[in-house]
Amino acid sequence: MDDKRVPAELTPKLALGLLGHEEFGRVAFVADGLPTIRPLNHVVYEGLILVHTRHTTAFAQAVLAHPGLPVAYQADEIDRHSRLGWSVLVNGTAADVTDSRRTERLGPRVQSWLARPLDTVIAITPQAVSGLRLTMEQ
Amino acid sequence: MDDKRVPAELTPKLALGLLGHEEFGRVAFVADGLPTIRPLNHVVYEGLILVHTRHTTAFAQAVLAHPGLPVAYQADEIDRHSRLGWSVLVNGTAADVTDSRRTERLGPRVQSWLARPLDTVIAITPQAVSGLRLTMEQ
Repeated sequence: MDDKRVPAELTPKLALGLLGHEEFGRVAFVADGLPTIRPLNHVVYEGLILVHTRHTTAFAQAVLAHPGLPVAYQADEIDRHSRLGWSVLVNGTAADVTDSRRTERLGPRVQSWLARPLDTVIAITPQAVSGLRLTMEQ
Repeated sequence: MDDKRVPAELTPKLALGLLGHEEFGRVAFVADGLPTIRPLNHVVYEGLILVHTRHTTAFAQAVLAHPGLPVAYQADEIDRHSRLGWSVLVNGTAADVTDSRRTERLGPRVQSWLARPLDTVIAITPQAVSGLRLTMEQ
């Protein structure tokens, strides 16, 4: 394959930094015994990934039923043509933090990609953060 | 929220059609008891989602160890500014089909977003396909 792209591993700190500059990602979790994915908007705040959602969503339901639910969160910025960019993966646990004082003022900053009333703030606590950046060979 | 976007549910047929016009998505699966996500390139062929990967990847390892592994596959095209676009979710099972005659000629069409030698073709058989399209209110 004539491909001059070079993958470089990102440090966890750099990976979390890129995630903080992006606002759109996807969460994977297990519901009813099966893996599923949902697109979400997020902010990174004090090392946590905060998402603002609605208590009726599949993700919120799963977290409310299982505080500390294991999740994966992924975001990327890959150019469709050059296929250069980066991808970040976070493994961690999710909990409802809607009533936490710290998130009261943060919640409104996290917009949903769907225009529905949002009432639930979920924090993902990273346990492992990894990432790759794809650049062109020099 | 002053948001004029209108979500419309897509039929499974339309959702799979959109997925077929996109080549980049993410698979969620459970490995070592924990959910995880990997970005992938795919083609849709005869109702199957085919991905070309390497046998050493976490996804291939999980599928090779558990043929029929439950997975979710998600792709989207959401404009960063207007936040209009679509998202498609497929729930299904994954199996190694590297040696299947049908995939022999398809494999090379499925490019990886990473430039590494690819030797494994995995087929995801959809069990449920859903999707949303976000358009502006007329």
